[in-house]
Amino acid sequence: MESTVKDIIIEKAKSSKIEQVDFNNLPFGSVFTDHMMVCDYKDGAWQTPKIIPYQPLTLEPSARVFHYGQAVFEGMKAYKDDDGKVWLFRPDENFHRINKSSARMAMPEFPEDYFFDGLNTLLKMENDWIKPGLGNSLYIRPFAIATQAGIIASPSQEFKFLIICSPAQAYYGGEVRVKIAEKFSRAADGGFGFAKAAGNYAGQFYPTNLAKEEGFQQIVWTDAKSHEFIEEAGTMNIFVRMGDKLLTCPTGDRILDGVTRKSVIALAEEQGIEVDIRPIRVSELLEGHKNGELKEMFGSGTAAVINPILGFGYKGERYELPVMTDSYATRIKQQLINIQYNIAEDKFGWRYEVK
Amino acid sequence: MESTVKDIIIEKAKSSKIEQVDFNNLPFGSVFTDHMMVCDYKDGAWQTPKIIPYQPLTLEPSARVFHYGQAVFEGMKAYKDDDGKVWLFRPDENFHRINKSSARMAMPEFPEDYFFDGLNTLLKMENDWIKPGLGNSLYIRPFAIATQAGIIASPSQEFKFLIICSPAQAYYGGEVRVKIAEKFSRAADGGFGFAKAAGNYAGQFYPTNLAKEEGFQQIVWTDAKSHEFIEEAGTMNIFVRMGDKLLTCPTGDRILDGVTRKSVIALAEEQGIEVDIRPIRVSELLEGHKNGELKEMFGSGTAAVINPILGFGYKGERYELPVMTDSYATRIKQQLINIQYNIAEDKFGWRYEVK
Repeated sequence: MESTVKDIIIEKAKSSKIEQVDFNNLPFGSVFTDHMMVCDYKDGAWQTPKIIPYQPLTLEPSARVFHYGQAVFEGMKAYKDDDGKVWLFRPDENFHRINKSSARMAMPEFPEDYFFDGLNTLLKMENDWIKPGLGNSLYIRPFAIATQAGIIASPSQEFKFLIICSPAQAYYGGEVRVKIAEKFSRAADGGFGFAKAAGNYAGQFYPTNLAKEEGFQQIVWTDAKSHEFIEEAGTMNIFVRMGDKLLTCPTGDRILDGVTRKSVIALAEEQGIEVDIRPIRVSELLEGHKNGELKEMFGSGTAAVINPILGFGYKGERYELPVMTDSYATRIKQQLINIQYNIAEDKFGWRYEVK
Repeated sequence: MESTVKDIIIEKAKSSKIEQVDFNNLPFGSVFTDHMMVCDYKDGAWQTPKIIPYQPLTLEPSARVFHYGQAVFEGMKAYKDDDGKVWLFRPDENFHRINKSSARMAMPEFPEDYFFDGLNTLLKMENDWIKPGLGNSLYIRPFAIATQAGIIASPSQEFKFLIICSPAQAYYGGEVRVKIAEKFSRAADGGFGFAKAAGNYAGQFYPTNLAKEEGFQQIVWTDAKSHEFIEEAGTMNIFVRMGDKLLTCPTGDRILDGVTRKSVIALAEEQGIEVDIRPIRVSELLEGHKNGELKEMFGSGTAAVINPILGFGYKGERYELPVMTDSYATRIKQQLINIQYNIAEDKFGWRYEVK
């Protein structure tokens, strides 16, 4: 890939905010670095990307994103190893996925060289914000929004693609018990549940608030047709260990094709764990809980990597999962982290060095 | 309702843009009046509403609305009669619906007095923008967006509620032929299809683009489970005339409870037309087309009031509808318009005078 870095317009921040940041006390996703990448789409083409001081956006009140939710995003992380090298984890997956999401939302695809050149340039400028040490990372949020003014319900012809970055500590998801959805749904067949589109998220907040009132932290969504099959947790794909076998449901119209999900599958298979990718019935979980076959459940996603699920609720009943000493969750999470931080060998070629 | 108009903070525009506007050539939803209403929600409460010069919004790049689609809206119109009085049509319905939408999107409800006082004050200030004459109107767009900074996927604690206004001429939807959805879906049971939430709209753009390539203007969505029942057209509810009977499907989780829809039902019933509110099978349309019972199809919505459907496509076949001289669509549209413009008696108490 020919570099076009020379074309990026760079305006440096006059001073850095980094001295004011307490890196030992970082609430997730609320502190941002000194710069951001912005690229405008107009007249049918993406314009020259710019890296500018992190700053508010100014948009017309009639911009399509406010009214019709035409917006997509990605989540990625940069890791620094003990030699000070900075690594991304499978960024090509995020790049291809944001364009897949964009296509479904009638938004223009973003050029590959703009994405990688912009990302590399931005991350090199923000190098001091990426702290070494396991758990520390820079969370990266590429996103695109429809900016055209006008409230007619039709696709925007103008967009902004941005990359903003937020320093993060190890994301501890807390004790996670999930409610299995019985009535509310996240996505329909033929819809856009597979996309990281803005519209897939706000609809989950209210049902999740109700679940929180019952003492659960997240919802495991089920299929809208029958509510008999588990799907995903909205920000995590779901894995279930039955005996020694690892189950996860297939992706499709309704379920996000998670980068961590496919990495977990590859790592599990590499070490001889049988992985069965097939629809998982809620009734299997209940039966497995009863006969002791249900050993583990965990979620996978960029923010938490792997988040063990301690129990679940379904139709008014609560089910606790066994406490495992050498769980698949812990083992695979460690392997993933070791690859991400350049500690372990990268057999799959997942690491990408920022330079 | 006790008026709190005195509490609204008003900052008048230094000059008006009205002289630059060609009121005989108004593309829908792209010209806005001199002022807008803005009300911020923070610290758990709606702050004092303000009416300020129409201007861009400045938001943090991490504002929730850009990432998670937490946003709702309404569409309304103001009409001026020949005496210069200004009327709204059933604004209480829009007020209650935006709060119903907000509740589903985990957004705070907006106070009734703020809504009506803000709307009245704003419309009186923009009186010159509302032109008399059938077809002319001021399209009103109340909307609310999640403004809190921070990219954690959880409900915002800060919001903006706005009202912007755009002068409109009679909305001619053009010749409308619809494609009946066979694969793509708009909403799931247990989802938020009933809400006027931003996330319900962008997902329709791509399938609609595909339908346009086949020569259709809109999609009539079908149920995601079986695609056997018609639902709505995304920006219009759908009516079907079979013989002398008018059919429309029931609202619910997936279908917007349209204000024009319920007004059409009331007007039709008032003049003795039998209205059957029940699920409508695609197969009934095909059969009715074959045996001549299918007389009309039309969409109802605020922008176009009633939009006759000239034909539909399904599974590669195209079906043209008969040309009616005294159609239900034309008759009911005229009745609705006469009520909206204070020409006919308002038996149902639907008109609301702005003063």
